[in-house]
Amino acid sequence: MRSDFLLKTPEANNLYEIYAKELPIIDFHNHVSVTDIAEDRKFKNLTELWLASDPYKHRLMRICGVPEHYITGDASDYEKFEKYCEIFPLLAGNPVYDWSRMELSAIFGIAEMPCKENARQIYDAAGALLATPEYSNNAILKRFGIHYQSPVAQLQDDLSGFDGVTVAPSLRGDNLLTEEWDMAEICRRLDAFAEKGCRFADHALDADFFSHKDRAERLVKLGTEYAKRGWTLLLHMGAKRSTSPRLAKLAGPAGGYAAAGSSFSVNDICDLLGAMEAAGGLPDTVLFPLNMADQAAFSVLQGSYSQDGIASKVQLGPAWWWCDHPMGIENTLNCIASFGVVSRFIGMTTDSRSILSFVRHDYFRRLLCSWLDEQNKVRQWELTPSQLGDMIRNICFENANRKILGGK
Amino acid sequence: MRSDFLLKTPEANNLYEIYAKELPIIDFHNHVSVTDIAEDRKFKNLTELWLASDPYKHRLMRICGVPEHYITGDASDYEKFEKYCEIFPLLAGNPVYDWSRMELSAIFGIAEMPCKENARQIYDAAGALLATPEYSNNAILKRFGIHYQSPVAQLQDDLSGFDGVTVAPSLRGDNLLTEEWDMAEICRRLDAFAEKGCRFADHALDADFFSHKDRAERLVKLGTEYAKRGWTLLLHMGAKRSTSPRLAKLAGPAGGYAAAGSSFSVNDICDLLGAMEAAGGLPDTVLFPLNMADQAAFSVLQGSYSQDGIASKVQLGPAWWWCDHPMGIENTLNCIASFGVVSRFIGMTTDSRSILSFVRHDYFRRLLCSWLDEQNKVRQWELTPSQLGDMIRNICFENANRKILGGK
Amino acid sequence: MRSDFLLKTPEANNLYEIYAKELPIIDFHNHVSVTDIAEDRKFKNLTELWLASDPYKHRLMRICGVPEHYITGDASDYEKFEKYCEIFPLLAGNPVYDWSRMELSAIFGIAEMPCKENARQIYDAAGALLATPEYSNNAILKRFGIHYQSPVAQLQDDLSGFDGVTVAPSLRGDNLLTEEWDMAEICRRLDAFAEKGCRFADHALDADFFSHKDRAERLVKLGTEYAKRGWTLLLHMGAKRSTSPRLAKLAGPAGGYAAAGSSFSVNDICDLLGAMEAAGGLPDTVLFPLNMADQAAFSVLQGSYSQDGIASKVQLGPAWWWCDHPMGIENTLNCIASFGVVSRFIGMTTDSRSILSFVRHDYFRRLLCSWLDEQNKVRQWELTPSQLGDMIRNICFENANRKILGGK
Repeated sequence: MRSDFLLKTPEANNLYEIYAKELPIIDFHNHVSVTDIAEDRKFKNLTELWLASDPYKHRLMRICGVPEHYITGDASDYEKFEKYCEIFPLLAGNPVYDWSRMELSAIFGIAEMPCKENARQIYDAAGALLATPEYSNNAILKRFGIHYQSPVAQLQDDLSGFDGVTVAPSLRGDNLLTEEWDMAEICRRLDAFAEKGCRFADHALDADFFSHKDRAERLVKLGTEYAKRGWTLLLHMGAKRSTSPRLAKLAGPAGGYAAAGSSFSVNDICDLLGAMEAAGGLPDTVLFPLNMADQAAFSVLQGSYSQDGIASKVQLGPAWWWCDHPMGIENTLNCIASFGVVSRFIGMTTDSRSILSFVRHDYFRRLLCSWLDEQNKVRQWELTPSQLGDMIRNICFENANRKILGGK
Repeated sequence: MRSDFLLKTPEANNLYEIYAKELPIIDFHNHVSVTDIAEDRKFKNLTELWLASDPYKHRLMRICGVPEHYITGDASDYEKFEKYCEIFPLLAGNPVYDWSRMELSAIFGIAEMPCKENARQIYDAAGALLATPEYSNNAILKRFGIHYQSPVAQLQDDLSGFDGVTVAPSLRGDNLLTEEWDMAEICRRLDAFAEKGCRFADHALDADFFSHKDRAERLVKLGTEYAKRGWTLLLHMGAKRSTSPRLAKLAGPAGGYAAAGSSFSVNDICDLLGAMEAAGGLPDTVLFPLNMADQAAFSVLQGSYSQDGIASKVQLGPAWWWCDHPMGIENTLNCIASFGVVSRFIGMTTDSRSILSFVRHDYFRRLLCSWLDEQNKVRQWELTPSQLGDMIRNICFENANRKILGGK
Repeated sequence: MRSDFLLKTPEANNLYEIYAKELPIIDFHNHVSVTDIAEDRKFKNLTELWLASDPYKHRLMRICGVPEHYITGDASDYEKFEKYCEIFPLLAGNPVYDWSRMELSAIFGIAEMPCKENARQIYDAAGALLATPEYSNNAILKRFGIHYQSPVAQLQDDLSGFDGVTVAPSLRGDNLLTEEWDMAEICRRLDAFAEKGCRFADHALDADFFSHKDRAERLVKLGTEYAKRGWTLLLHMGAKRSTSPRLAKLAGPAGGYAAAGSSFSVNDICDLLGAMEAAGGLPDTVLFPLNMADQAAFSVLQGSYSQDGIASKVQLGPAWWWCDHPMGIENTLNCIASFGVVSRFIGMTTDSRSILSFVRHDYFRRLLCSWLDEQNKVRQWELTPSQLGDMIRNICFENANRKILGGK
């Protein structure tokens, strides 16, 4: 891949090279395995690292009609890898096409486009590297320059795997709304999370969330507790998870068949946040609507709950899940800029299980630099490179870091 | 019109000339008159062929305030034609402006922009040609290189007008949900359709569809029957047909006043498709949401019902009806590429009554070639022209042809 | 600022200079103070004129975390001004950033970008000018070349401040739906408004409007009365005003915290307009959806209620409130062009309280000229500059003026 990948102009390239490229990564919401970190897992081949744990790639193989035998079935690791390479040129346009190439290039120095013809060669070259200590789980992680990441953990989970500094837990709170918990017990566990450096709590509000009144009421109470601890609340809204009953059996809960549900109600979210505020405990909040058409309306809320001394109390978050592609990212940037203040945008998080997914921060930064350069020219902002550099630093690092340091 | 119409670069032009232009047309859903084909209808003048049967053009005349006298009223054919030419330069931006010019250019070799001044000249020139055998209904059709088209027919319709090879019926199933039918009788007729080469069944799910539970249940049963026969189900979703009571009287059911209703529920569609699948009979399905804001969410479903060996079991279809313009087409391409696999997109169909509308395939192909060329450059896909050519062939022909050959 | 601000090409610049720039302004819906006009108000400093009465600027200060002390609190006028200048470079991307610069440039000849360093200098320079008669309320208004503006008034308001020629009232009808009024009394007052040159009636249909059946029914009756008088009905749809209870106390009803609610129902609007039509009194109607994702569907309605001799009986209006930025404006233009006839678009209105906001007409015209030039090239409309000039004149003046002259 070219070093100016996605950087449309020399000016965009300069912004990237001077201001964006070397910024440390904050990944405030992901699903990285803490066990793999604790054990410094080794990967036996490229399929295991690159393909087997990536439901995005599986989903594209299924869309192309590849038989399940080659996806999660009995085919050998190499056969599965070869099948993916075979359909690879068909995938152009999907972000997984870009990520796949970036992963091979950034980690293995493999510059070729995968295809049926070079599958064996790529597989063997990467396999040889994976056999060396420089390609263990943690050695790979180290390459990315991660300042802080917070993989999700559930309330009852053992937190001993988190070092509390660069790897802190973030709370996945969904089961707190559906299971019976004693509030005192919850608070004790929240404190345990806080001691391990937790700064973020995440709730998935699926398509039918507001048809369960009791859950919304419980969430208001939890929000108050998050606010007390200075945590930031992440609301992932509008997934429709129960699509194909057949695929659910075949591919499991993370099988890539979940969909973006109908437009999610801004009004309901306003009422929820208003209720937290009235209860005296609105935490800083980041909104992740899954239906791309909702990004505009949700971005307006950046101005709707402002609080003294807090930059962007409530705000639209990074383009989430199926929206994490150039169109979704650019739409997010356009919406936050047009309806609010893009300098206060919290930037990027991977929300991924795969340690290779940290390349998506680089992906985001390249798109951001091209977008800023283009806006500065076409909309005649007349900002200097240094002023644009400040925006980049805010978006890629400082705004998220401010949430980690206490929301101020 | 220029030969590079809508082709933004020399590379886009090459893609079009080498890969797209000569591909045979598959038009899997339209309203072309089989009677006109059987009788090889002659058209007495340009108004009859070009204007009288085109509710899109009527709609624009109404928007411009042209009195109904000149649209469907008592004015002479020439007066109506002249009126349309008079407002023509005002219509730039609407796809009908482009189609009108393409129709005159491709069929009649008329390159001028219609206007009040040249109306008479265009009318007479086209009229002279229409008097010759080279401009009969079927002679015009022949120019387009149609491999397969399937005009809609209702269950009880006489199918003798279909040759079953290049002109096969597609089933318009709406009345099967609202009228009482015996299931055995339905199956007998479906077999009769199948014998005539039918491969597609279409249902219009208007804005209030899911408020009629019995219809959704009936549709599940029908879906099973379509699946048994290897047919593809077309779901046209979200039309709001009852807008102006006054225009409904004036202009009839196809009067151009129907609107795009509110956002259509992805969740309801997921439940419907899931029910078909659970009943053992999900047919291949193409989704046509009429509200453009819904295209993103519906495109995600390409990954939600995948099946071994079938490329894109469920997928977003061509930009439908009011969305059939460059913005809608490009948004469709962007959505399918970003949320799924654009190489597996089923491409274009006209959904039109007018035989001149086949120029829209050329329109689509030009936009597609420009889009592919731009994406390949801006998003740095690094695909060769030949690889892009494969995508073009898939999108413009093979993917639809695979549905005709049996969904495999 | 450069004279070619937002004009992307020499051709766009020519369109602006030759056709757009000098057109008189029609501002058919705003909140300008008639008292200020009657008294020819003087402004004691730039904060009073530029900042204190502009909730948009306050909102951005809040988003950036500026303490309320510097927004509506006890800080001095200069301290407030300085605070805004301090955060100003962070605001790039938001339209208020552009408007702020245009306001300083167009009215005060101040070309510098505001920042902490030059705050004092700008404040003093503008302050000196504000002390002169050339910078009174009406002297400022005079610079804009306003042909007609219609600030809103409520039914019971004293109309003596309106001259009925360049400053006519437009009716803000919201309280007519929630308070008890005698219909005869309403009609008497409507006649009084009409005598003062009123041509527009405005209703805000907030997010929950259609849950109040009686209001919709009352609106149908009022619509009939507006139609009788040849008025145009403005429907502002989908605001969610009750967001933060805390901010509501702090910043008052126009505090900038209102949000764009969930997608607004096109179907309900169709039923409302259909009911007016059936009652024999559908007035010309302009639709303002606040959720940007709704612009596409609402723009289709341009073709759904057409009437003999009336260009665009019902149509999508200017990008409203939070949508009034380049992305929203360009989306409006793209939607009206693609789904309807952009030549018949009613153009721009400020909807603002501030007399400086008339610069937004210039903003709109620059964006329009760039958009037309780009469409004409990329979509190959092949229109002459003079034909494009006709479109500009229609959009920026004639279409709105036709509504003022009686809807014909």
